[in-house]
Amino acid sequence: MPDALPQAALRDRLRAILGPRGLLTEPADLAPHLTDWRALYQGAAFALARPATTAEVAEVVRLCAETGTPVTVQGGNTSMVGGAVPDESGRHLILSLGRMNRLRDLDLADMTMTAEAGMVLKAAQEAAEAAGALFPLSLGAEGTATIGGVLSTNAGGNTTVRYGNARELMLGLEAVLPDGSVWNGLRRLRKDNTGYALRHLLVGAEGTLGVITAATLRLFPRARDTALGFCAVADEAAALALFRRFRDRDESAVRAFEYMSGTGVDFCARHIEGIAIPFAAPAAHYVLVDLASPRPDAGLRDLAEAVLAEAMEAGEVLDAVIAESDAQAKKLWRIREEHPEAQKREGASVKNDVSVPVSKVPEMIRRCSAALVALIPGSRPVPFGHIGDGNIHMNLQQPEGMDPAAFLARSHDIMDCVNAVVRELDGSFSAEHGIGRLKTDMMAEWRGGAELAAMQAIKRALDPHGILNPGKVLP
Amino acid sequence: MPDALPQAALRDRLRAILGPRGLLTEPADLAPHLTDWRALYQGAAFALARPATTAEVAEVVRLCAETGTPVTVQGGNTSMVGGAVPDESGRHLILSLGRMNRLRDLDLADMTMTAEAGMVLKAAQEAAEAAGALFPLSLGAEGTATIGGVLSTNAGGNTTVRYGNARELMLGLEAVLPDGSVWNGLRRLRKDNTGYALRHLLVGAEGTLGVITAATLRLFPRARDTALGFCAVADEAAALALFRRFRDRDESAVRAFEYMSGTGVDFCARHIEGIAIPFAAPAAHYVLVDLASPRPDAGLRDLAEAVLAEAMEAGEVLDAVIAESDAQAKKLWRIREEHPEAQKREGASVKNDVSVPVSKVPEMIRRCSAALVALIPGSRPVPFGHIGDGNIHMNLQQPEGMDPAAFLARSHDIMDCVNAVVRELDGSFSAEHGIGRLKTDMMAEWRGGAELAAMQAIKRALDPHGILNPGKVLP
Repeated sequence: MPDALPQAALRDRLRAILGPRGLLTEPADLAPHLTDWRALYQGAAFALARPATTAEVAEVVRLCAETGTPVTVQGGNTSMVGGAVPDESGRHLILSLGRMNRLRDLDLADMTMTAEAGMVLKAAQEAAEAAGALFPLSLGAEGTATIGGVLSTNAGGNTTVRYGNARELMLGLEAVLPDGSVWNGLRRLRKDNTGYALRHLLVGAEGTLGVITAATLRLFPRARDTALGFCAVADEAAALALFRRFRDRDESAVRAFEYMSGTGVDFCARHIEGIAIPFAAPAAHYVLVDLASPRPDAGLRDLAEAVLAEAMEAGEVLDAVIAESDAQAKKLWRIREEHPEAQKREGASVKNDVSVPVSKVPEMIRRCSAALVALIPGSRPVPFGHIGDGNIHMNLQQPEGMDPAAFLARSHDIMDCVNAVVRELDGSFSAEHGIGRLKTDMMAEWRGGAELAAMQAIKRALDPHGILNPGKVLP
Repeated sequence: MPDALPQAALRDRLRAILGPRGLLTEPADLAPHLTDWRALYQGAAFALARPATTAEVAEVVRLCAETGTPVTVQGGNTSMVGGAVPDESGRHLILSLGRMNRLRDLDLADMTMTAEAGMVLKAAQEAAEAAGALFPLSLGAEGTATIGGVLSTNAGGNTTVRYGNARELMLGLEAVLPDGSVWNGLRRLRKDNTGYALRHLLVGAEGTLGVITAATLRLFPRARDTALGFCAVADEAAALALFRRFRDRDESAVRAFEYMSGTGVDFCARHIEGIAIPFAAPAAHYVLVDLASPRPDAGLRDLAEAVLAEAMEAGEVLDAVIAESDAQAKKLWRIREEHPEAQKREGASVKNDVSVPVSKVPEMIRRCSAALVALIPGSRPVPFGHIGDGNIHMNLQQPEGMDPAAFLARSHDIMDCVNAVVRELDGSFSAEHGIGRLKTDMMAEWRGGAELAAMQAIKRALDPHGILNPGKVLP
């Protein structure tokens, strides 16, 4: 059994491990680490540990295991679900990996790089690019989110349709397990069938089974030909039909395929400077298709033109523009990227990160939209996202003129309303954002029975005192 | 604690669950299930259960959990490492999934199919093809191996360089857990971040953590353009350099990339009817490169010619032939595929299924070959395999004229010799064949410490009485 220590004594022991630079205890220093950027939660902590090495992480975790001290692991603190925020008890130590941000290795024969957990995603992308390769994981928070964080949450993003989630980009891990032991699994192997896939268990476990300290990641050849199309489509089913046309033609060329509702695009055009709808008349549904190939002679513009012509002929595409330059491509991408900001300027909104089988996306959007408007008359559904992954952000904007607080008070009803449809369509209540603190309640209902029992057994087996991220993931 | 039953009573209980067709007890019926095709092991069992439904599997496993009866799970029984054979005690029940072989669902919008565990891999490939799609997993035993087996062992094969192992082709699982509970995780979702990745824990666990009863698998568009080259290359480093040239040009077009030694190709030409070396003079090293794309206008033949011309210019490729027809492509593939048969006809050989980082393959082949010839003078290294995955079958053929039994008596020395080099190069002692019974001894040495301790904790947590495949995977 753990042998609890007074917090003053704990701080002394931690300072002895980490040195003065490695431990923060001043309220002003702790403050930014105690809340999430969505401001859903406000936690407390008695200190923040900033280890510089894996050995220091191990010593800290071992001390916490011995003393039964709960640990909240934190990367870039960009969780959408309160995954990096401690609870309100003040008993937690925050373990921030921010100082462990080195690139340890990059090898173009292996097409791998090994990065420490605290390396910012954007820095990892840039390191790959500087070497002439591509690290494809890309998401809104990439300037702040860290490698440890995106792996712990199995982050998705815009290129998942082509390259998979963070999980698929990971070959090996180094991690500190809940007893403070170090597992060096930084293997650069494409094939290694030697026992249970611990690396896959830690990815997506949101730090509850171990602290990822470094990872070996896959690299890809960079794009040498690209084409980007922005289309007005007839309806949700037409958006899916267009995705299928591109996928069947060359699934490896589809780097991203994004759906947007007319409502969301309209918000962007209204609120964001420099954004205009590139067509004479606004439409109810849009699609952005981004093609890329390492072959300079891939002929992707011709491919895009041919597929869009077929889809127009079939009545799926109403109007389309193909970017003439990188600058125009970036401008068209902004319409998709500015959705969160445009929604913010339009007033209050509730976010739903759900997924269904790809075939059921049109039905999901239609049914959820109808149900939401019935739930809150005047409210405006703003579905957008990764239709090729079956992952739509089924967001809802407040009715015009409604009190934002009154609208947000309905958040749970709104989530329940979306989830009821998603569940009937064999979908998931968290496609890429994870569980964190926000969605633990849903685990019992959606994953209960044999599945949740197995997860809880694994948690007890690896972290018997429950010190790593208690209150996250499992109910 | 389990409450043991006499075997006669167990048989009665099993017959009540499974009916007369579902339980075999005659020695003649059991015999083919008690040994592996390599004849490395001869086990015993008191009965063979052949459930027809997931509910029957669950009832059988529950009974075994209650009575502490060890269960050996068997698919097509094509393990290379004795993974499907029970021990010699006669206490085991064999659980064969062979009757559960239905295709439950195939959806071209989702690009998924759901197959029961007993479906033969070849039948799954054919079902996809009949629907106009591709299920890319392909390996020598595909006419016998089952979906449950290839997932439980995370099988690799010839197309791993493009499509990944069995793991990467799996979206969801249905499984019976060691307590007899059924987990329905047959989700057709590309994104689902809701707790621990149980599906990844079961894949590669070789049936020790649960019995896979069905799986949802990913489909791909079929190839509409292909090109196949067979090349004599200067040395091992040239083989890797050629792989890099193709990968950097278009990694998604490289469906397979195989290395073969001159020794192995020579064996094939000598022993297998219809095989001839397609060049004027034999070489010491060969490569087969197989390109494919769903785009009919991918221009793969031109790509192959251009890359091979560059590589000839650079002195990497000495001679090359590009297949003029599908028939010629099949003929060239036979040179690679007949390696096991040619080795058999040449006498005794010892197989080593190892992997290293891709960059270290040339060094691995050179050092292993030298060490093996030093260990057994006159012996003939026959390295071949998936150089793009870093996975080489580092096989050794007996010296001409040596007594095969005397050579095979050195099997462990030979494996140790190869493993010593592989370990120095941060490789794996089992790339795609798994652990089974053959390699459990190696687990402690190679994966010992935090990693093995975590695996053992997981095993105890999910299978506290150790009834599923005892003696496999873990030492």
